[in-house]
Amino acid sequence: METQRQLNIGLFGFGVVGEGLYRVLEQTPSLQANIVKVCIKDPTKKRNAPAELFTTDRNILLNDPEINVIVEVINESEPAFEIVSTALKNGKAVVSASKKMIAEHLPEILEMQQKYNQPFLCESAACASIPVIRNLEEYYDNDLLHSIRAIVNGSTNFILTKMFEDKLDFKQALMLAQQLGFAEADPVLDVEGWDALNKWTFLLTHAYGIVEKPENIVFNGIQNIKLSDAVVAKEKNHEIKLVAQAKKLQNGKVAAFVLPQFVTHDDPLAFVKNEFNGVVIESGFADKQFFYGKGAGSFPTASAVLSDISALRYQYRYEYKKLYYHQPPQLTNEFYVRTYISFDDWKHVPRDKFEWIEEWHAGERKYLVGVLHFKHLQADAWWKENNVSLILAPDAIIEDVEIRKLKKKSLELAGIVD
Amino acid sequence: METQRQLNIGLFGFGVVGEGLYRVLEQTPSLQANIVKVCIKDPTKKRNAPAELFTTDRNILLNDPEINVIVEVINESEPAFEIVSTALKNGKAVVSASKKMIAEHLPEILEMQQKYNQPFLCESAACASIPVIRNLEEYYDNDLLHSIRAIVNGSTNFILTKMFEDKLDFKQALMLAQQLGFAEADPVLDVEGWDALNKWTFLLTHAYGIVEKPENIVFNGIQNIKLSDAVVAKEKNHEIKLVAQAKKLQNGKVAAFVLPQFVTHDDPLAFVKNEFNGVVIESGFADKQFFYGKGAGSFPTASAVLSDISALRYQYRYEYKKLYYHQPPQLTNEFYVRTYISFDDWKHVPRDKFEWIEEWHAGERKYLVGVLHFKHLQADAWWKENNVSLILAPDAIIEDVEIRKLKKKSLELAGIVD
Repeated sequence: METQRQLNIGLFGFGVVGEGLYRVLEQTPSLQANIVKVCIKDPTKKRNAPAELFTTDRNILLNDPEINVIVEVINESEPAFEIVSTALKNGKAVVSASKKMIAEHLPEILEMQQKYNQPFLCESAACASIPVIRNLEEYYDNDLLHSIRAIVNGSTNFILTKMFEDKLDFKQALMLAQQLGFAEADPVLDVEGWDALNKWTFLLTHAYGIVEKPENIVFNGIQNIKLSDAVVAKEKNHEIKLVAQAKKLQNGKVAAFVLPQFVTHDDPLAFVKNEFNGVVIESGFADKQFFYGKGAGSFPTASAVLSDISALRYQYRYEYKKLYYHQPPQLTNEFYVRTYISFDDWKHVPRDKFEWIEEWHAGERKYLVGVLHFKHLQADAWWKENNVSLILAPDAIIEDVEIRKLKKKSLELAGIVD
Repeated sequence: METQRQLNIGLFGFGVVGEGLYRVLEQTPSLQANIVKVCIKDPTKKRNAPAELFTTDRNILLNDPEINVIVEVINESEPAFEIVSTALKNGKAVVSASKKMIAEHLPEILEMQQKYNQPFLCESAACASIPVIRNLEEYYDNDLLHSIRAIVNGSTNFILTKMFEDKLDFKQALMLAQQLGFAEADPVLDVEGWDALNKWTFLLTHAYGIVEKPENIVFNGIQNIKLSDAVVAKEKNHEIKLVAQAKKLQNGKVAAFVLPQFVTHDDPLAFVKNEFNGVVIESGFADKQFFYGKGAGSFPTASAVLSDISALRYQYRYEYKKLYYHQPPQLTNEFYVRTYISFDDWKHVPRDKFEWIEEWHAGERKYLVGVLHFKHLQADAWWKENNVSLILAPDAIIEDVEIRKLKKKSLELAGIVD
């Protein structure tokens, strides 16, 4: 196999993922990839590997001409970015698992890949064991991808599953997730949607060539979802999921956001329970595809890193075809969404912002279902505050071209016009 | 991107897939892949493409030094094999969609890839739009793959879905599948399991490095499944699927077969309805993964061919790691299966072959659930004849090391020993 080369790896991080990777590589000698050196922060910690493998000096790895691949699986975003930058500059291929770093430094990382002509692979940063980036890169060309919808955060999905199936309230479900190791001690990154948003930021680049700052993408987590919302979902024969999604509209622009959503039982995302992740891709040619697997954990993450390492052996790199070979579509807020909103007091909901309202329910916890222009979600945060819970309806997106007809029909149904 | 090259394609076949591919390539100029010439059988047929593109002389394609890739999407197995052989010999990369040809000529195709050092890619021959070969090649190393279970034939899955959901009998469901284009006019290849068997033959090579003749793999289709079987499945809260599967046993050998099976509702395969395909892979590192998509049809097949073409641009080839870098495991019949069998007359069922029987039901259509040594399925075909219908239980495989304990427990439950 003349196109393969021996990979000499400098590894940053020896936590559960780094050590998992080390074990996997030990068990797969056929890869011809070996870890030359591991850079760690705390040299006093006891490690289950030969002492001479470790150093605390990052430059020993970054300046070693024998090392041709840097694998970076550390937790902190800024040191990770420095390591990745220096590695690419020094002519080394990079495999990274740092979702936050990638989301925050996306333009620089894209630029450096071109400038230094080195591959930067990061499959494990998206959905760990689900090869979503590789499939977006290789199976879908820009003008063919209708939509991508995904559950990219296992921690929130676990909590929602427990609320839904075991009738736990949010706090109980979160505690259970923490006990079982599916949520961090500080759960804010997961629960409030930041982790999903970070992943969605760079998945948008692979899916559509869109390079956008995370803060420009509308998102929320599940922190405001009530057990009563799960009860309403059940009545409607739906489930609640935190769905990251992007859809190409008829005007060629892309709607993209990360929000809780009701999903119907025939939606593949309804199948994704507990800590699993899932991705549904709809396209002109492959039709509908669904990928499901473990989106986190030491071995699933290590296996994704391993597959990136394996791909480096035949000089694989992302082409970002949608970004470089096409005019990438723009992100837009020019569309409408059908959404459910539950709340304690009518005063927390700006009813005049709704195009029309289809359902209302009084009671201690009130809710309505109505249609909103998406700009009202971008513009301010009333829907995240005052204990308001916003959950999109299934098939939530309504395009500009459809709104007038739908509004007329809705008003007719309500007996307001005929 | 220095590792890419311009691909000049010679295409064999201009049926729905060939023409689909032609259209897709027209719409994706970024691929730098163009079809130089198309070889067809019938020059009089009207085609929706420039006349100068076509020839009936295969040597014009196979001997053209400018053509570096042969794509073959014809229906007949033997001509396909001749084309593939000559192309590889002439130093051309090959993309093939001919499952039957690949299954029947597997050893020769493996040998030629090594001898002529050319890539042979065939993703579309497995599950069309589901990238199962690529994932087996890149995500799983031999000793890590616990099991793979798949629905690889959309036609039989459509029929089973209609029997199950709409209570059609087998013949009605088959007719509906034919009307909707999900089954061939001559449905034997699909319905009797040959198509699934062919796919499973080469998927076993990518999964485990096993190179076996199709006729040595135990298989059946769905031709004997009755509406009454679907009723029993519903009572047990199961569904019936035609499942191709392989599992690594504790003794290191592999159990592999293609047989109808009851699947439980939490099994991802239960989610696979109508003409869709699905693959569940369980492994030590990535844990459980599930891939779902269209397994046939012109555009899904063309999109898989396209992804193979795209991969050729960076010299991608299958490595068959499990075959060449490891000692591949042997296929074995040394295990037991728990199975449901329905039949018209007791005389058609060799009850003395069962280790024990757990359930019996009289009535016009009788059935039993019992445990059999797998060699009894390999040895003769009583379970395919005389209108006998065999459907494996969920988790059907029982290993040698478990059988004694289970048998004792079963006899205790029956009150025979204590």
